[in-house]
Amino acid sequence: MTVVDKTNHHLFQPLLYQVATGILSEGAIAPATRDVLRRHRNVSVLMAEVTGFDLEARVVRCRQPDGRPLTLPYDSLVVAAGAGGSYFGHDEFAEWAPGMKTLDDAVRHRTRILGALEMAELEEDDDVRAAWLTFVIVGGGPTGVEIAGQIAELGRRAIGHSFTRFGPNDVRVILCDGGKEILATFGDRLSQHATQGLERTGVEIRTEAIVQNVDATGVEVRSADGSTTKIASRTVIWAAGVAASPLARMLADASGAQCDRAGRIAVQPDCSLPGHPEVFAIGDMMSLNGLPGVAEVAMQTGIHAARTISGRLKGQEAKPFKYRDLGSMATISRRRAIVSFRGIRLHGYLGWLAWLTVHITFMTGFKNRFAALVSWSFAFLGHSRPQQVIDEQRMPGRTPR
Amino acid sequence: MTVVDKTNHHLFQPLLYQVATGILSEGAIAPATRDVLRRHRNVSVLMAEVTGFDLEARVVRCRQPDGRPLTLPYDSLVVAAGAGGSYFGHDEFAEWAPGMKTLDDAVRHRTRILGALEMAELEEDDDVRAAWLTFVIVGGGPTGVEIAGQIAELGRRAIGHSFTRFGPNDVRVILCDGGKEILATFGDRLSQHATQGLERTGVEIRTEAIVQNVDATGVEVRSADGSTTKIASRTVIWAAGVAASPLARMLADASGAQCDRAGRIAVQPDCSLPGHPEVFAIGDMMSLNGLPGVAEVAMQTGIHAARTISGRLKGQEAKPFKYRDLGSMATISRRRAIVSFRGIRLHGYLGWLAWLTVHITFMTGFKNRFAALVSWSFAFLGHSRPQQVIDEQRMPGRTPR
Repeated sequence: MTVVDKTNHHLFQPLLYQVATGILSEGAIAPATRDVLRRHRNVSVLMAEVTGFDLEARVVRCRQPDGRPLTLPYDSLVVAAGAGGSYFGHDEFAEWAPGMKTLDDAVRHRTRILGALEMAELEEDDDVRAAWLTFVIVGGGPTGVEIAGQIAELGRRAIGHSFTRFGPNDVRVILCDGGKEILATFGDRLSQHATQGLERTGVEIRTEAIVQNVDATGVEVRSADGSTTKIASRTVIWAAGVAASPLARMLADASGAQCDRAGRIAVQPDCSLPGHPEVFAIGDMMSLNGLPGVAEVAMQTGIHAARTISGRLKGQEAKPFKYRDLGSMATISRRRAIVSFRGIRLHGYLGWLAWLTVHITFMTGFKNRFAALVSWSFAFLGHSRPQQVIDEQRMPGRTPR
Repeated sequence: MTVVDKTNHHLFQPLLYQVATGILSEGAIAPATRDVLRRHRNVSVLMAEVTGFDLEARVVRCRQPDGRPLTLPYDSLVVAAGAGGSYFGHDEFAEWAPGMKTLDDAVRHRTRILGALEMAELEEDDDVRAAWLTFVIVGGGPTGVEIAGQIAELGRRAIGHSFTRFGPNDVRVILCDGGKEILATFGDRLSQHATQGLERTGVEIRTEAIVQNVDATGVEVRSADGSTTKIASRTVIWAAGVAASPLARMLADASGAQCDRAGRIAVQPDCSLPGHPEVFAIGDMMSLNGLPGVAEVAMQTGIHAARTISGRLKGQEAKPFKYRDLGSMATISRRRAIVSFRGIRLHGYLGWLAWLTVHITFMTGFKNRFAALVSWSFAFLGHSRPQQVIDEQRMPGRTPR
């Protein structure tokens, strides 16, 4: 069995925002894939980027880190390349408003956020300093809400008091969403709880706010009444819109399957491709029965593909995938979260305890769980941010020397 | 009071090798300087690079991260910019054999070491694979010994068994030193213990081996008998030679002081500059009474400069600096270290316990100590390496896409 990935790590995406805000180390949410699979002696892990498929010849084409090609033959193939951010046709925003999908993104955001505070401390011009102290998050889904809440915690509580040119209250965090409310999929009641919780933490929420432009100086937003305002900000984070990995399109072209507007490939009821029962596309890159692009769908389709393949080796027929909805959750601030689970809706501290339990359960490896618990004890009982390293190669406003 | 530094963190250099080999996270050895000083309300911390001094006008010239100039006036000035690696006139080696002085270096080495193992797993050519699996460390002082020991632990024990194209014993670690023995300053007995300990861990030691050349394919070494051999290696680490920060030369030019061969500025007995009792150069960048460039000298001269300045404000006269030698130590492998302290010489497990005590004591902040103890429990009781993230921006052999 071969696992091929362009990174060497198995990323626990739901906690990326904690790396971006200095709570967890990279290693805590991204153990080496090789290490995770070390007990499976029949698995080979290769670090290479997939560049194409030949479904007739049954080979995957890859590029090694040094650029050389690599061809991997297969009997059964599972493609689980996830999704990246989508700028809805405005890819030029990406330079000023990077997304939040990879570990590289998270480390970059950590450097951008902490670096912005350092730039503000150096800045003599009040307007420019205010722009360095204004953080705009585009997108009010769970990712946007979680990063907004934690930037507010970081800037307005944990470290905002350790500067001389500004105080914690000068740090502004603005969450923009195009819809009528944030976290709309959680329902009105939880959405309102989340709004109140975020506002208490110091996040300004702008709903029905459509981003028109992003550049080095800030964000242009159109309101419901059609008026356009400019928010001066040096740190914009893009948490709106999702587009499936380009591998979905490649698989679609190779198999004749369709892709939806988000670039997700329409799969058969068992997650395989039309005419290719030996090829599976799972998780965020597949489109099936309108299932959302959440971790639970990804994990359950992974298990389903594995069972289908091992069942086939025993001569069993493929069964259609059945999703078991385990609900969803999002942290709001230090010890608050909202949880929606089969009609049960939790919020506040109780929601946070549920969040804690689920995230500890699904992290990979005992050591990472233990390390996360230790970091969370410091971060959520006190206000500690143990990972505050600014990466000099990712520092904002950095000029060539 | 103003602290100016080109990074945002206070680096505990003695543990850089543990970041480079995946044991500790960056944050664990590099808390934010601002965070370390948060209780001192009269201290301002600025992130900028010092570019020059005007000792007559009493100003420090700096460059902000975005390139703009910044001028800081002072009454008293303490310059503590440390030292970097020296290539003895062969700066072209730096591209293939980076040093081990900054956090950036350590993260780069982590990516180079783990990346080399990944490249070996992909490589079909036996000779090239052997070169990816050969790690050469140049310099048999404490830094070279510690990183060599930990690369051997990492490759030959902790993770070497999780690859399919090679086994732990295919990983070679070669430590080259120009002298007759490694760790010569510790004396013959401890040096022999260290040699035996390293060899047991799997490090090959080559003494009287002078590096003639380093390039993309490896290292050329001249032996005592005058013969030259080539070691094929894709990962070379430079731990030989130290050169003071260029700021030492600037201070010397500005004050008329001399610099020694390592670029260290000759200071007055109280660590101040000739003719400038208000300016101090301390630690690795100063030359005084032949004191070595070790952490103890740096810490004690720091305290001395602080006391001299505060004493002067009370009208007291400056006293000459007196060094209290607290000995030196180096880890050899997982639970072995050597310690030399006032005629007492420890090695093996006892030495390691002394090493542990001292390093926990001198780490900054309770949280970092606790986090390090947790990581060390996993790493030294088991073989765990919690920080195995390969940074895509620092991956070896990476080609532009």
